[in-house]
Amino acid sequence: MPMTASTVLLVHGGAGVIRSDMDADTRKAVCASLREALERGQACLGQGGTALDAAVAAVAVLEDAPHFNAGRGAVFTHEGTQEMDAAVMDGATRRAGAVAGVGCVRNPVRLARAVMEHSPHVMLAGPGAEAFAREQGLELADPGYFRTEHRWQQLQQALAREPRSPGHEDAQDGGHYGTVGAVARDASGGLAAATSTGGMTNKRWGRVGDTSVIGAGTYADERCAVSGTGWGEYFIRAAVAHAICMRVSAMRQPLHEAAEEVVLRDIPQLGGDGGAIALGADGAFAMPFNTVGMYRGWIGADGEAHVAIFADEEMDGH
Amino acid sequence: MPMTASTVLLVHGGAGVIRSDMDADTRKAVCASLREALERGQACLGQGGTALDAAVAAVAVLEDAPHFNAGRGAVFTHEGTQEMDAAVMDGATRRAGAVAGVGCVRNPVRLARAVMEHSPHVMLAGPGAEAFAREQGLELADPGYFRTEHRWQQLQQALAREPRSPGHEDAQDGGHYGTVGAVARDASGGLAAATSTGGMTNKRWGRVGDTSVIGAGTYADERCAVSGTGWGEYFIRAAVAHAICMRVSAMRQPLHEAAEEVVLRDIPQLGGDGGAIALGADGAFAMPFNTVGMYRGWIGADGEAHVAIFADEEMDGH
Repeated sequence: MPMTASTVLLVHGGAGVIRSDMDADTRKAVCASLREALERGQACLGQGGTALDAAVAAVAVLEDAPHFNAGRGAVFTHEGTQEMDAAVMDGATRRAGAVAGVGCVRNPVRLARAVMEHSPHVMLAGPGAEAFAREQGLELADPGYFRTEHRWQQLQQALAREPRSPGHEDAQDGGHYGTVGAVARDASGGLAAATSTGGMTNKRWGRVGDTSVIGAGTYADERCAVSGTGWGEYFIRAAVAHAICMRVSAMRQPLHEAAEEVVLRDIPQLGGDGGAIALGADGAFAMPFNTVGMYRGWIGADGEAHVAIFADEEMDGH
Repeated sequence: MPMTASTVLLVHGGAGVIRSDMDADTRKAVCASLREALERGQACLGQGGTALDAAVAAVAVLEDAPHFNAGRGAVFTHEGTQEMDAAVMDGATRRAGAVAGVGCVRNPVRLARAVMEHSPHVMLAGPGAEAFAREQGLELADPGYFRTEHRWQQLQQALAREPRSPGHEDAQDGGHYGTVGAVARDASGGLAAATSTGGMTNKRWGRVGDTSVIGAGTYADERCAVSGTGWGEYFIRAAVAHAICMRVSAMRQPLHEAAEEVVLRDIPQLGGDGGAIALGADGAFAMPFNTVGMYRGWIGADGEAHVAIFADEEMDGH
C-alpha cells in the first residue's frame, strides 16, 4: 500500500497473539488504543515534532495500555517477574538507544531514548539500565503496576505445559509475538523507529529478544524505518529490520518488496514467523506479516486513523 | 587479499589499542598467542571439525591469554567489575548464540555456543546467563582469574580523567577496541564467526557492546562470516557484520569491496572506527581497519600461521 504524504505514522501492537474468537469488547479496547497511539503520535507531528518524538509518543500509549505485551500488561518470566526490552533509532543520524531486562520503568521506550540522548552507549541491560533510569529521573513504577491477571494466567499455563514440551511451550501460546512499535516520518522527511516489549512468556536466564537488538527488531536510516514483532530469536538471526533497510537503502528495492521478501520469505525459511511495519522516506509503507493477524494501524496528515487486525481486513478509517 | 583454499581461519585480537612504541616482549607474546589461536583452530579443521568448532577454539585461546581484552585480561567497568560479552554464529543454519554481562565464566565464547545449542534463545544477559552457564556445567572462574594489573591501571587512569571529560574518557585510552574474534571455513565449505570481549574500560550501567549484538560485531550466513572489533556503539548503529554479509550475499559484491566499504567508509562516516575480519564461502578474505593497527592473522590448509599488527606490515609466515 504505497502512498505519498507529508507526515506518516504506523503502529503495531504485535502479531500472532490474536485469536479469531476474540470477544467484541477486547477488540474494541485494542482498536481504541491503537487509534489513541496513532492520534497522539500524529499530534506530535502536527505540532512540528520529530519522527522520533512521534514514534516514542505512540509506543508510550501502547505501553500504558494493558492489552499489549509491553509496559503495563507485559508477560511474565519463568520466575514470575516482568523484564522489558525497548529500542529507538533516529534515521537521519542513525543514533540509537536500547534497554534490555528492565522492570521498574513505566515507559521503557522513554528509557531507550534517554540512553541514546544522555549516555555515551547504545545499549544498557538489567540493573545497570535501571540505575541509569533513576539517574535520568524517568518515571518509575512498582511491579504491581505492570501486572495483569491475563498475563499471569498465561505464565501458569506455560509452566503447567512445561514437563510435556520443555523449551517449546511458548511456541504454542503465542507468547513470542506481543510487542508494540511505531515508525514515523516527520514534516522534514526524517524517519524514526521505536519498539517495546515484555518479551516472551516464561522466558528464562535473562533472555534478550529482538526488540532491543538494533538491526533485529528496530532499525532506521535516512531512507527506511522498521519495527518488527515476531518470534524474536528468528528476527535476530535474520537481522530483520536491518535487512529491510539495506534492501531499500543500499539495494534500492521498492519498500513493499523489501519488507515482503524479508517477512514472507527469509523469516519463514529459517522457521520463524511474525510481522513488521516499514516506512520509506517518500512516505511509502508496508505492514507484512505471516501470522493470522497483526494489530496495526496508520495515520496520515489528514489525521484519520486506520486500524486492522486480521489479514483479510481492509484498513478502516474510523 | 583474496585467495582460495580448502580450510581457512582468520583471527583478530582487537584494533586501535596498539601503541607504536609497544615493547618487544609484549609484541612477541601477542604474536605467539595469535599463532597459537590460529594453530589450535586449524588443528580442529584438519581433524574434520566444523567452522564453528575452529572459530570457538581459536577465540578460547585468545580469551585465555592475558594480553587481549576478553576472558582473562578483560577490562574493568566503572564499578571495578569485569562484565564480558560474546557471540557465535553458524553460517549454514544462521543459528546464533550470544551472552552479555557475564563475570564468572572462564570462556564466554563457549557459553555463547551453549546458548545456541542448548537453549531456545539466542541472547542471554547478566545473572540469568551465568545461571545458564552453571546449569550447562561450563567451566567457571573467580574474579581474580580475569584480573590483570594492566587493565586495573587503565580503569584508574580513566576514572582520574573523568571529571575533565565525562563520557569521553574511553575514546582516548583505546579501551573500546580490545576484542577478539575468529571466522572460519571448514572442509565442507561451512562458515562460522565468533567474537568475545570485556567491552570498554569504565563502561557503566550494564552497557552492552557490539560483540554480543548479532549483526553488529558478529554475523555469518552461507556466503560470508564476519567478526568485528572497534568502537562498539558505532558498530551497532551501522550493523557492521550484517551489512558486510548483505553486501556479499544479497548484493553479490566482492568480499574485500564489501568489507572495505563498511569499515573504511560507513563506520568513519558515522564518526566511529575499528576493523573487521571477513571470510567468504570461496575462501576469499579481507581484514580492513581504519585504526593504527589491528592484531590479526590467518592460516590456510598448509598450516602456516601468518600474523601482523600495524597497517603497513606484510603478513609474515613465521
